[in-house]
Amino acid sequence: MKIGIDIGGTNTVWGIVDKDGRIIKRNSFKTFESKHFEDFLLALQNSLQPSIDEIGEENFEGIGIGAPNGNFHTGCIEFAPNLAWANKIIPLAEEVSKKFKLETVVTNDANAAAIGEMKFGAAKGVDDFIMITLGTGVGSGFVSNGQLIYGHDGLAGELGHTIAIRDGRDCGCGRKGCLETYTSATGIVRTALEKLSDTHSILKSEANINSYTIFQAAKAGDELALEIFDFTGKILGQSLADAVAITSPSMIIIFGGLAQAGKYIFDPIQKYFDQNVLKVYKDKVKIVPSLLKANDVAILGAAALI
Amino acid sequence: MKIGIDIGGTNTVWGIVDKDGRIIKRNSFKTFESKHFEDFLLALQNSLQPSIDEIGEENFEGIGIGAPNGNFHTGCIEFAPNLAWANKIIPLAEEVSKKFKLETVVTNDANAAAIGEMKFGAAKGVDDFIMITLGTGVGSGFVSNGQLIYGHDGLAGELGHTIAIRDGRDCGCGRKGCLETYTSATGIVRTALEKLSDTHSILKSEANINSYTIFQAAKAGDELALEIFDFTGKILGQSLADAVAITSPSMIIIFGGLAQAGKYIFDPIQKYFDQNVLKVYKDKVKIVPSLLKANDVAILGAAALI
Repeated sequence: MKIGIDIGGTNTVWGIVDKDGRIIKRNSFKTFESKHFEDFLLALQNSLQPSIDEIGEENFEGIGIGAPNGNFHTGCIEFAPNLAWANKIIPLAEEVSKKFKLETVVTNDANAAAIGEMKFGAAKGVDDFIMITLGTGVGSGFVSNGQLIYGHDGLAGELGHTIAIRDGRDCGCGRKGCLETYTSATGIVRTALEKLSDTHSILKSEANINSYTIFQAAKAGDELALEIFDFTGKILGQSLADAVAITSPSMIIIFGGLAQAGKYIFDPIQKYFDQNVLKVYKDKVKIVPSLLKANDVAILGAAALI
Repeated sequence: MKIGIDIGGTNTVWGIVDKDGRIIKRNSFKTFESKHFEDFLLALQNSLQPSIDEIGEENFEGIGIGAPNGNFHTGCIEFAPNLAWANKIIPLAEEVSKKFKLETVVTNDANAAAIGEMKFGAAKGVDDFIMITLGTGVGSGFVSNGQLIYGHDGLAGELGHTIAIRDGRDCGCGRKGCLETYTSATGIVRTALEKLSDTHSILKSEANINSYTIFQAAKAGDELALEIFDFTGKILGQSLADAVAITSPSMIIIFGGLAQAGKYIFDPIQKYFDQNVLKVYKDKVKIVPSLLKANDVAILGAAALI
């Protein structure tokens, strides 16, 4: 058996995966409640250890972890803007391995999701695709020639930190205008708050604005909410049109909370992608949602690292 | 022996490469003088056939061609904005092979240059790098995990057609603001003409403005010329900072006419790259000129396709 862990800016979810790729047990805890790495390690241990003990440690092959800015080569998290306890280099694989006495491998959370899609999801048999995760941040994994692109330092695949709007919104990374400041779950809330200041909508107060309430408002036909999704899809569609010119994939898979808004986000992404993509790539790229349950893909992908 | 051909927007150069990777014979002709593909084929035949006959066709293994929008998988040039005779799908490999009765393989011109650098140049032993060619257009080849990224359709690596300035200059591809409208040899001339209209400089008339005269003016200390290089390096440095976030290379190799301006172009590229790159990639990427003579790299790379 293997353990797959997906560390997100909001939740950390783990699953125990059997040899047939089924998740036989799972749980989660709040990532952001840990202020220091030691707190996070303890929270992980409290959540996971009882299940390991129950099944017996000798039955596990190891632990795979997908984490923001996770480095496959070094096993570290390096300066993850969305994790309070990881604003430096954190030796994640080493410490988790010590704690649980199991071999541990780390990669970027979106890379883990990409592996999950290749093995079990929409990208089975697809050699060239891009995986986009729209969560607290925006992650990406690029697969070319059937292989994940890790880069020379293990840190490739940060489409979320390419510039969508030059000198645009402040980003947690210290720069301005990164894609993730517009198209993450937090980015779409920023868009809502910006637009709210000069119009009326059923999205009345800051307190009730999150990506889910914006989705509900859009479903109810709220014009501002539809405008917010259109804007978000425009920024992402434009960025994806440029990304395609680098690796020429046949598929882009989008997953994460925002992807669950279905046509409200996919329609504008597709529209602006088509408007902006270079002619030679036109009508060649399928933009699709993940085929796997939201958390499953990252857990399965992380476990498949072992 | 092998034949390597590099088709550029201005010149087509070819070389005969022996088994030790030496170019034992070479020539060139003007690409833009051909209006139709048939004219180009004839011009190529007139230039190359005598040398093949002299050495004897039986001594050749084949022909490798680097061409703008060259498709490795199909052997076609597909909608090349800078070739008057290739604004559609041109079965280049097939027709050249028929004409010379030699196996022919095609790839994008920048991919051919990347192969040349890997085999004989600055990228020997480097598994993750980006090759940028600054010519009539801007080409790029991405190498990850020691392999060229061809993409699902053979058309990956068009950094020149990612958007540098949204809604910016008109591009030959039909869109606006592509990197190549700013940082190609023709792009830098457009910058000069734009800036010239509101200032004085030793670059007095349109007639004498090209990337070489701008370089000469910069060497002479002309402020406008220095400003033009600064602007060009800024646009390219910014785009490269974003490209690095996709594949995380350890090296970016720049070649082509504009790269010959040395520090006048490399200093601003480096400066703006450093200002714009995500922290995790900082000080990890060498930006270097090609180590090979300008035409050699593309000829050697194209020949190495065989």
